[in-house]
Amino acid sequence: MSESNAVLIGRKPVMNYVLACITLFHGGTKEVNVKARGRAISRAVDVVEVVRRRFLPDLKIKTVDIGTQQMPPREEGGSPSNVSTIEITLAQ
Amino acid sequence: MSESNAVLIGRKPVMNYVLACITLFHGGTKEVNVKARGRAISRAVDVVEVVRRRFLPDLKIKTVDIGTQQMPPREEGGSPSNVSTIEITLAQ
Repeated sequence: MSESNAVLIGRKPVMNYVLACITLFHGGTKEVNVKARGRAISRAVDVVEVVRRRFLPDLKIKTVDIGTQQMPPREEGGSPSNVSTIEITLAQ
Repeated sequence: MSESNAVLIGRKPVMNYVLACITLFHGGTKEVNVKARGRAISRAVDVVEVVRRRFLPDLKIKTVDIGTQQMPPREEGGSPSNVSTIEITLAQ
């Protein structure tokens, strides 16, 4: 997996992450993992779609994995919460 | 595809859609397609994860497809906008 690189989606504008993906592929990376959790999941799908449709139409979506991550309690004595995750692997 | 049934994710609470999925499977459906677009994509992943982890652990995620749908302009003379979509197929 040394060929693999992750782009973690947060709250910045979609184009920031699009640029990160394109930069990785132009640097010779064969696979990029776009990862997000919670509400950023929709933005991760936006990023992948913009990269593929507007910039790098030859990219393939290799896998889409969804899952759940347990987050520690926000305050002491609270209960842990679950958050959904997505990982989309793009390959040249 | 007559065995297939769709649950379209909107703005209602996650558990409403979870119940819809469970009802379909209990009615004998072999496959359920959970579909969403735009910001509801994160909720679609939540629905699938709750169904699988809390209620029907034997379900498999058969496919996860992401795509783009072109929406007509909101006002006359406006330009069409693109919205991301997801379709997650759960199978018994």
